[in-house]
Amino acid sequence: MLLPMPWLPSLDRRSPAPLWKQIVDHAVRLADEGALPGGERLPPTRVLAAELGVNRSTVCRAYEELAALGHLESRPGSYTTVRGRARPLAARSSGEPLLDWDHLMAPSVRGAFASARGHPKIPAGGEGWIDFSTLSADPDLSPVDDLRRALRAALLEQPRSLVDYGEIAGYAPLRELLAKRMHAHGISVCPDEVLITQGAQQALDLVIRFLATPGSRAVVESPTYVGVVPLLGVNGVRAIEIPVGPDGMDLDVLESRLRRHRPAFVYTMPAFHNPTGVTTSQAHRERLLELCEARGVPIVEDGFEEEMKYFGRAVLPLKSMDARGAVLYVGTFSKVIFPGLRIGWIAAERECIRRLAGLARFTSLSSNLLSQAAVERFCHAGRYDRYLRRLHATFRRRMTMLLRCLEKHVGGDRLEWTRPVGGCTLWARVPGGRLADERALIEAAGSERLAITPGSLFFVTPPDQLVFRISISRAKVHEIEAGCRRLARALEKTHRN
Amino acid sequence: MLLPMPWLPSLDRRSPAPLWKQIVDHAVRLADEGALPGGERLPPTRVLAAELGVNRSTVCRAYEELAALGHLESRPGSYTTVRGRARPLAARSSGEPLLDWDHLMAPSVRGAFASARGHPKIPAGGEGWIDFSTLSADPDLSPVDDLRRALRAALLEQPRSLVDYGEIAGYAPLRELLAKRMHAHGISVCPDEVLITQGAQQALDLVIRFLATPGSRAVVESPTYVGVVPLLGVNGVRAIEIPVGPDGMDLDVLESRLRRHRPAFVYTMPAFHNPTGVTTSQAHRERLLELCEARGVPIVEDGFEEEMKYFGRAVLPLKSMDARGAVLYVGTFSKVIFPGLRIGWIAAERECIRRLAGLARFTSLSSNLLSQAAVERFCHAGRYDRYLRRLHATFRRRMTMLLRCLEKHVGGDRLEWTRPVGGCTLWARVPGGRLADERALIEAAGSERLAITPGSLFFVTPPDQLVFRISISRAKVHEIEAGCRRLARALEKTHRN
Repeated sequence: MLLPMPWLPSLDRRSPAPLWKQIVDHAVRLADEGALPGGERLPPTRVLAAELGVNRSTVCRAYEELAALGHLESRPGSYTTVRGRARPLAARSSGEPLLDWDHLMAPSVRGAFASARGHPKIPAGGEGWIDFSTLSADPDLSPVDDLRRALRAALLEQPRSLVDYGEIAGYAPLRELLAKRMHAHGISVCPDEVLITQGAQQALDLVIRFLATPGSRAVVESPTYVGVVPLLGVNGVRAIEIPVGPDGMDLDVLESRLRRHRPAFVYTMPAFHNPTGVTTSQAHRERLLELCEARGVPIVEDGFEEEMKYFGRAVLPLKSMDARGAVLYVGTFSKVIFPGLRIGWIAAERECIRRLAGLARFTSLSSNLLSQAAVERFCHAGRYDRYLRRLHATFRRRMTMLLRCLEKHVGGDRLEWTRPVGGCTLWARVPGGRLADERALIEAAGSERLAITPGSLFFVTPPDQLVFRISISRAKVHEIEAGCRRLARALEKTHRN
Repeated sequence: MLLPMPWLPSLDRRSPAPLWKQIVDHAVRLADEGALPGGERLPPTRVLAAELGVNRSTVCRAYEELAALGHLESRPGSYTTVRGRARPLAARSSGEPLLDWDHLMAPSVRGAFASARGHPKIPAGGEGWIDFSTLSADPDLSPVDDLRRALRAALLEQPRSLVDYGEIAGYAPLRELLAKRMHAHGISVCPDEVLITQGAQQALDLVIRFLATPGSRAVVESPTYVGVVPLLGVNGVRAIEIPVGPDGMDLDVLESRLRRHRPAFVYTMPAFHNPTGVTTSQAHRERLLELCEARGVPIVEDGFEEEMKYFGRAVLPLKSMDARGAVLYVGTFSKVIFPGLRIGWIAAERECIRRLAGLARFTSLSSNLLSQAAVERFCHAGRYDRYLRRLHATFRRRMTMLLRCLEKHVGGDRLEWTRPVGGCTLWARVPGGRLADERALIEAAGSERLAITPGSLFFVTPPDQLVFRISISRAKVHEIEAGCRRLARALEKTHRN
């Protein structure tokens, strides 16, 4: 039987799509809807061409394409028929998936998901909310116009090379620029001791995959960066947790743990520690370096907010004292500018970088050159420094305001908090509060339209304290006082319950 | 003793750098050169200010900054002195790195490096060379001007959101567009069944990490994509190799291997297989799908050149027949357009994508939104289709020319080769040649200034045949005849030795 009338497409002769393509699209749509049953005979090309008022070759071209797409079947000496594809779209309606992904997925990934599931959810915020939770560069401060111009200039100058695969280590001028910038923080590296990564997160992932084997151990601070916990999990690495005190990780505990274990690395954030906001002293840094050097354990130093020393009292990174190449320094633009461009880097001893770049080639071939070139141009013209000066002024105001308003509206008996010398975060502890009250606190804050980050997120083994992080990376200076008032009310509500 | 004269910087009052900053930079430079010995007393701020003819507060600011950078030490009731930093720059000269990275790195990474090291090096090319080796979009064909305009428009329209972290699954309009485009290849997915990745390489890495645990097995074609071999290695996954014949992977062998092992997945390139150029038949695809479905083994389908069906005879991807969600389809723009933008994707069953996105969040937080928005805009305006039409015309000419010139200048007794129906590569075998001659062949080609890709790269277990890949992704149509002549001479040279 010949196909019925729906088979006739209505052709649009003014469309840019060629007529044969319009016939094909129409037929594919019908097939998807199940309106082209298998085995149906197709109208002869001559007949269909006459019906549609098109050239016969147009219909032939369409049939050829439909055959190529697997919709038709022609047997020699027989009519062309619709190919019975029992499964295609029917699948989507029948719906029952064959595979159980929870069962199939790697146990380490399953474990990382499971441990992430236990935390209270941070409310999404919205109109009228105050965000004391997010930690990343504030896009409202971003010099997007300058970035747009930098992108345009970069693409006009190097139209071909910037859309091609680039050097695996990253865009060479950006590596040069980073080497120079790090010098201002006392770090002496050459451009070939720098590897550009997709944000600090990919940098940490690369370092873990490079140094740690599934089942091995790594030292982390407790609390530590929220993003490193599932990363260790996914890579099957067990955490050795060292408590963080007022001067950073407890080095006596570290020393005793290093006597018992040989970890793949020690992960630390010596400046503006996330979440606590603690910046360690020069003496602490020197002792940490000595401890690790003595045992041949690499240090992964996360300098995620190195550029945020706005109170001018921070000391030099560990990497600046790293005489023997034991420190892998991880940097990022994401907490300072353009988080969405995903540009981070690793600075380490040349032979270490060479191997990390080899591993990066295996896992992602190369990095996004265009964003790198844009950022390089942006920084090069001195705009980055001007931006940083404005940023420092803004954050000095925000942090000063936060510390003052906590004092004024919350007070020291209901809450204890750290006093950071830079960065965007501080760490707060409710005296007498217990971990069990955490969900209630987050919800009470939510009911005041205030987002704060539950402290348990930052621990592998949660401590029985009620702690949370305040971040002012997205909180405007005029919102901070209201935020502290809301926090005070949320604390009261939690206490009452 | 007061510091000697070199301590006095020469200030540039017209520089945009503030004077205090110039003093700091000068001192840091001296410190790096070892010209600021520890313990030296600093000139009093009043004295230095007078010497330099600047305000005393300028010198104070500089000293504060130097102290923050760890270069100075002030003890109460004493002079400010230069801080003895025994190690900083000295390190770089003493030179001996403390750590042996080859010893410290994860054994799986070490293994992947070791196996990569065995292959002959592809010469880098240069002026006068003909490139029959590279496989990725030809930047000379890239519509960079259109991309630049798309970027500009995207940034003007969404200045804030495009520089911020985005949805982990990728830029929503691009996921919609991809879902629509895949529909043209018979694949029916919703936008939330698509995850954008940093190129197909990150997609493959994610899938391997998601499905395979160290020590497990995965099925690959033999030969297979050169980039998947080290990726399996790094992830500690062992390959089950299934030979590729004229109609793709030998399904009888696969069937018998599936009876013995339960692999984490089957990895296949049914269209324009890389390196062989083979496109499998509809029947082959249906049987492969049935085999895997029957055993509950997911299929990872690499559709890296899905858009390169320029001879119009290719069949539909496996994913189009995937009624029960067992196929994870990997796509990429990198072989068609803008490889440097690193945009790939995974299309799979919703619950699978949800978990893969969770894993991607752990490993890289989010993807580069800006490039995604630019590509989406570029494709949206119909420019991508126009570009593809031009590209198809170009590659039809290149491939036709290659097949004709191989026939004419090399001939069937000295070389056998596949006849692809699309894509950029073909696979060549030297009758009677042995793997041992591979290095000689690559070098002979190099001496003719011709780059070809050694076949051994594409195998986990190299076969004792002399095989290589020809790719015309970067070879212009007018270079192809000369390339084939050079190849003929290289083959002769190899035979003579």
